[in-house]
Amino acid sequence: MSFKSQLEHICTQVEGAVACSLMGFNGLPVETHIVEESGVDVDTLWVELSSVFAQLQRTAQGMSAGEVREVAVHTDRLATVARLVNPEYFVILALRPEGNVGKGRYCLRVQSAPLLAELS
Amino acid sequence: MSFKSQLEHICTQVEGAVACSLMGFNGLPVETHIVEESGVDVDTLWVELSSVFAQLQRTAQGMSAGEVREVAVHTDRLATVARLVNPEYFVILALRPEGNVGKGRYCLRVQSAPLLAELS
Repeated sequence: MSFKSQLEHICTQVEGAVACSLMGFNGLPVETHIVEESGVDVDTLWVELSSVFAQLQRTAQGMSAGEVREVAVHTDRLATVARLVNPEYFVILALRPEGNVGKGRYCLRVQSAPLLAELS
Repeated sequence: MSFKSQLEHICTQVEGAVACSLMGFNGLPVETHIVEESGVDVDTLWVELSSVFAQLQRTAQGMSAGEVREVAVHTDRLATVARLVNPEYFVILALRPEGNVGKGRYCLRVQSAPLLAELS
């Protein structure tokens, strides 16, 4: 299954999903699937989040907390969950604030293995 | 109810809770309740998270995403959920990775109003 199909598959399973992307920690998206416009500058938010994710990864390793597996940020207008795929890439899902964040977390966890297989 | 009692109340409600703190965005804790030692340097992680939370707040406001209400970081050894109380303070909960994160998010949301009342 292509990256695009995998990201679309995540979005169709999660109520309130707005967009899903496979991102590099360099801030560049590999592939993106957009369900609807959110009115939020998602591209910029995701570049910022990739920087925060990388920063937290360095911090966590320095304090025996292990790898950072997931980072989530909820604002008034958008909920965002990012999950580690491998040391270079993560998958990120944006939802409307009333969307099903728990289901989103679950789907990203399940889908990270097939995404990793596709990256290898 | 004192800050200490409120933080303890959160911890008793959430399965897997390790510690809970009311923190300033300056990185200084106002009050902390510790349930058990996690083996992770929680103090340092929380100072880092307060910096990340503030950084995301500035970014989100600049891209029409509204206020950042919640930031969560899950590592191999600790899950952490932080929730905005007011522009100067947030409440943060650490759980074992297998803890009930959904319940933790709910409790922080509910408890942020009484904490805000206590701060005022």
